[in-house]
Amino acid sequence: MKTRPSIVLFGDSITEESFRYGGWGASLTDTYSRKADIVVRGYDGYTTRWALFLLHHIFPLSSTPPVAATVFLGANDAALPGRTWERLHVPLEEYKENLRKIVRHLKECSPTMLIVLITPPPIDEEGRLEYAKSMYGEKAMKLPERTNEVTRDYANGCVEVAKEFGVSSVNLWSRMQETQGWQKKFLSDGLHLTPDGNKVVFEEVLKVFNGAWLSAIDMPYDFPQYSDIDPHNPEKAFQNV
Amino acid sequence: MKTRPSIVLFGDSITEESFRYGGWGASLTDTYSRKADIVVRGYDGYTTRWALFLLHHIFPLSSTPPVAATVFLGANDAALPGRTWERLHVPLEEYKENLRKIVRHLKECSPTMLIVLITPPPIDEEGRLEYAKSMYGEKAMKLPERTNEVTRDYANGCVEVAKEFGVSSVNLWSRMQETQGWQKKFLSDGLHLTPDGNKVVFEEVLKVFNGAWLSAIDMPYDFPQYSDIDPHNPEKAFQNV
Repeated sequence: MKTRPSIVLFGDSITEESFRYGGWGASLTDTYSRKADIVVRGYDGYTTRWALFLLHHIFPLSSTPPVAATVFLGANDAALPGRTWERLHVPLEEYKENLRKIVRHLKECSPTMLIVLITPPPIDEEGRLEYAKSMYGEKAMKLPERTNEVTRDYANGCVEVAKEFGVSSVNLWSRMQETQGWQKKFLSDGLHLTPDGNKVVFEEVLKVFNGAWLSAIDMPYDFPQYSDIDPHNPEKAFQNV
Repeated sequence: MKTRPSIVLFGDSITEESFRYGGWGASLTDTYSRKADIVVRGYDGYTTRWALFLLHHIFPLSSTPPVAATVFLGANDAALPGRTWERLHVPLEEYKENLRKIVRHLKECSPTMLIVLITPPPIDEEGRLEYAKSMYGEKAMKLPERTNEVTRDYANGCVEVAKEFGVSSVNLWSRMQETQGWQKKFLSDGLHLTPDGNKVVFEEVLKVFNGAWLSAIDMPYDFPQYSDIDPHNPEKAFQNV
């Protein structure tokens, strides 16, 4: 297939779900339509620790690297020890070290790859408890398995790692909380994104892409636009393809 | 990159736009999440005549072929001679012959490729005129540039070609008109799809995929689900990757 540049979205469920109604992955695909391919590599429940097992498969050194990658991990790492999702917990320092390994590998794949680290979104603890109750009734957890405060530390850790390497980051944890009512406006179950929440991710990632050298407007179409095709001599438009 | 099977969506603007809000391409991506990659190759304004110039680039004989492809062309071919979009018009017999060339090429790429021909949607002539008036005011066309009747001939032609080759087809022209109020429910400007219209395409294509051997439920995940990963011994789950 004639190759377009590719942009890989690597992450957990918030990336996996990004093609649902109003999803940020779908919106990026639409924005880069006919110019770049958006490749979704989102894995529900994954932490940075498990993501390391996929890294060399998703970004092999041997093949054409993507022009950009988003790395959107940490929401699971930040699950608290001793609570419902203890099995996901990755200590903060290991989370940061895992992110460093990921960034180092991506830079080895391609020194010019546009790398964007996205922090976990904020946690609406009340929303998490409500969701658990709606799912499990009386058996639901009484204490949230993630807190907004602890997730802040992971978000800060993510931004720090980005700074260490001079790569871009989106501090979603902070950005979302700038909006009144972020808890229900942006989060569907205290953690995952509503269409409005997806819009925030889309806009923030696009801002980074546009601010770098990856603005869709400046990229060439893979094939001619119909308005450039002479109906009496269509061959001409395709001569240089 | 570790390769998932790919499914190519080849067509005109209705394919190009399929990652907008509620789009059928995005819905397919979500359905085949972690199992297959949906690759969008939609070209606004393209007819089958121009699509032939892209065919060998998008489906080269030399590389791994997609496991399935949708071919969704004809809405532009059916533009009437002597009206606003005359330059797009492709005569019915040529349209059918072009579709045959496309199917023959796809079969040459891979005899097992699941090929789905999708007919153009019905035309709401009133909707086209209203749209033109909203865009161009007094300068708008007074006669629709496409009619539902002529588009029916192209839809029938598409289904006939599919039958000739024993490949699948979705008769969107018929299917949509089974619903009362299809004109506004499914079409945003008399031709392009609303989210409800996108849903019809998604469901019909999925029905064909599921009825063949391409049901997402039966396909393997590319990497383990988190529930299959032992937090104390994660290596194990990734040994066979």
